[in-house]
Amino acid sequence: MGTAYSKSEKAYLEQIGNRIRELRLDADLSQEKLSFACDLDRTYIGSVERGERNISVINLRKIAQALNIEVSALLNVEE
Amino acid sequence: MGTAYSKSEKAYLEQIGNRIRELRLDADLSQEKLSFACDLDRTYIGSVERGERNISVINLRKIAQALNIEVSALLNVEE
Repeated sequence: MGTAYSKSEKAYLEQIGNRIRELRLDADLSQEKLSFACDLDRTYIGSVERGERNISVINLRKIAQALNIEVSALLNVEE
Repeated sequence: MGTAYSKSEKAYLEQIGNRIRELRLDADLSQEKLSFACDLDRTYIGSVERGERNISVINLRKIAQALNIEVSALLNVEE
C-alpha cells in the first residue's frame, strides 16, 4: 500500500495470492473460515488473494498453519 | 518492530535468519555484497539474519534472486 512495486513484483504477489486462494478452496474453506482459523481479518485475506499485499512471513505462517501445509508450499509458484 | 510476536514466531524468524545467513555464506558473500546485489540496506540484512524482522515476500524474493535460489528455499527450515 503506497509502495511502488515493479511489474514482476506485482505479478509475483498475484501468483502467491492465486496459490493461497487455490489451497483455501482445496481445503473447502471460505475466506471467512480461513480468516477465523488463522486469526487474520477476512478483508486482509481477500486483499492477499488479489495480490494487493506484500505479505510477511509471520502472516504466511499463520495461513499455512490454518491450511495444515508448509509455508514454502504457499510460495511454490511458477515465475 | 513494536509488534509482539509469540515465542514460536520469534523462533521462526530466527530460523529464517539463520537459513539466510547460511545460504549467504555458502555463496561466499558478505552482508555488504548481498545487500548491494539485492538493493536492500546492509543493516536491514543484518537484522533479518538475527531474526529481528518480519520479512515480506518482496524482500525475500530480492534476497533469493541475489542468491540465485528459489524463494521457498529460504523458508526451508525445521520447525
